[in-house]
Amino acid sequence: MRVLITGGAGFVGARLARALLAQGRFDGHAIEEIVLTDQFEPPADLRANPRVTSRVRPLLQECAALRDEPFDAVFHLASAVSGECEADFDLGLRSNLDSTRALLEGLRHAGNVPRVVFASSVAVFGADVGNPLPDLVTDTTLPSPQTSYGTHKLMCEYLIADYTRKGYIDGRSARLMTVSVRPGKPNGAASSFFSGIIREPLAGVETTCPVDPSVTHPVSSPAHTVKGLITVYQASREAMGGRLALNLPGLNVSVGEMLDALEAVAGPKVRARVRFERDERVAGIVANWSRGSTADRAKALGLLPETSYRAIIEQYIADCRTRPGYPSDALRGLT
Amino acid sequence: MRVLITGGAGFVGARLARALLAQGRFDGHAIEEIVLTDQFEPPADLRANPRVTSRVRPLLQECAALRDEPFDAVFHLASAVSGECEADFDLGLRSNLDSTRALLEGLRHAGNVPRVVFASSVAVFGADVGNPLPDLVTDTTLPSPQTSYGTHKLMCEYLIADYTRKGYIDGRSARLMTVSVRPGKPNGAASSFFSGIIREPLAGVETTCPVDPSVTHPVSSPAHTVKGLITVYQASREAMGGRLALNLPGLNVSVGEMLDALEAVAGPKVRARVRFERDERVAGIVANWSRGSTADRAKALGLLPETSYRAIIEQYIADCRTRPGYPSDALRGLT
Repeated sequence: MRVLITGGAGFVGARLARALLAQGRFDGHAIEEIVLTDQFEPPADLRANPRVTSRVRPLLQECAALRDEPFDAVFHLASAVSGECEADFDLGLRSNLDSTRALLEGLRHAGNVPRVVFASSVAVFGADVGNPLPDLVTDTTLPSPQTSYGTHKLMCEYLIADYTRKGYIDGRSARLMTVSVRPGKPNGAASSFFSGIIREPLAGVETTCPVDPSVTHPVSSPAHTVKGLITVYQASREAMGGRLALNLPGLNVSVGEMLDALEAVAGPKVRARVRFERDERVAGIVANWSRGSTADRAKALGLLPETSYRAIIEQYIADCRTRPGYPSDALRGLT
Repeated sequence: MRVLITGGAGFVGARLARALLAQGRFDGHAIEEIVLTDQFEPPADLRANPRVTSRVRPLLQECAALRDEPFDAVFHLASAVSGECEADFDLGLRSNLDSTRALLEGLRHAGNVPRVVFASSVAVFGADVGNPLPDLVTDTTLPSPQTSYGTHKLMCEYLIADYTRKGYIDGRSARLMTVSVRPGKPNGAASSFFSGIIREPLAGVETTCPVDPSVTHPVSSPAHTVKGLITVYQASREAMGGRLALNLPGLNVSVGEMLDALEAVAGPKVRARVRFERDERVAGIVANWSRGSTADRAKALGLLPETSYRAIIEQYIADCRTRPGYPSDALRGLT
């Protein structure tokens, strides 16, 4: 089978590609080729893999050619992130809405009804004036996004459901919780600090937390997130039970609890590298986000949230020691 | 003030234009000009009005020029209807999604933050496998559209909310219930029969009803629908209470009750002109539609549903006798 991963050079996309390559087979078929599209080259281990093809160009330019090149499986992860979309409204529409439409049109006209997993986001939920969010957002909470990023994700969920209803693709949307701990550099997402306050101190780098320690949020490790994408792909339409967008599981945790876990794993000196310095722009966005989530439909597919944030940090440390994609100095702060 | 009505030559658009012209002033300002854009000419009475300008061309071609021509008030009614969108997927995307985006971009770049009322639809709600609709859809029912038309309406609601959040427009979306009784010819909407089974027998024309008499649905008269659009325009952002899409009021009525009312008003001979002949295509679409609705947020703005379907028919008959836009032979079947 041939697999397309958009945003395939990004952290989640690359990890997904590695997971599929390690399986060798996917959904009952041998994997012949994985095509990674992105704006930059994928990591070296993937470039070196004979079953991996990399295409470095904007997704919008990529899509027309898909009509003549059927894929069996598509994971659509490419996206401009929340902070970028707030700063550049046109970029957000182009990267998140136009690109998804072009992708869906390419897949539709290929004619082979590929299965498509769209990486949506917990950012479809938002607190609106007079319509506060429940303590935990569920699969049936009415979305009311308060960022352009969340708006585009939600619009694409509905578009994918309609392409699926028409029989053009076999699509489903998995709402990713905030991924923590991401390796590498901070990115333009307003949620970037949910990784930064763990990653930077472990690397020996001083960092700031832009929100109060009492802020809670649903998070998921990279491994759990990739497992969620694969499981949603493999679910039958019947198991999806009609509505095609569902929450992936998240561990509901406060910033204070995250730092307590960091201290428990790495000691008070590491924790002390995080200083609280409120950033009104980030705090304002986060204030309208979900404080926690449930994921009953994912649970019915066998997906459960992590049991502790401490386990997530321990997994990050293990990943840093063994996995590609983690910088060699990622644990320089652990003494 | 200058008012733009897209779809302004259509039945609801023309009636809205007449209502605004009759008021003379709107929202505290004198109306200087009403521009009607549509794919065809508006009715003669509007063409003859010196305050009305008609522009006959596709909306998509119209929108770039809006950047240099600010409007104070915009009613966005132009749309391909449900049956058309099911038959021609590309037409639906172009007419309902691309055109709305082009309109919003034009209005954004005009820079004067116009107030915009978008005519959304009860078709945003739909019954999905494993997720049946409640007996009455409310302002907070989770939309799950089962037509491309409903999908595009919902996507545009969210896009308009985001343009509003960014301060580019002052937008709000009013979900129209099925308008009954529409004068004139049947159209491509799957809901067309909700007018046809009253209009045709009153005109002396035999007609068929494609669904069972037990089918229930929320309907609204043309007058109530226009009043709803005007009221939603005039509501303050505070009165809208955050979320920018709301249900307009509907009278929840069964097809059988509609025909009983027709018989009460016009006699058994008129009713007998309706024959039940199931149309699987239409019945299949209608089976996934709302069986009824509530409209609490509209009620808070002072909007109430009609009290009886009989009153709606009596209003239609009065309109046929007195109003422009109603054919002279519309009551030929009334003896």
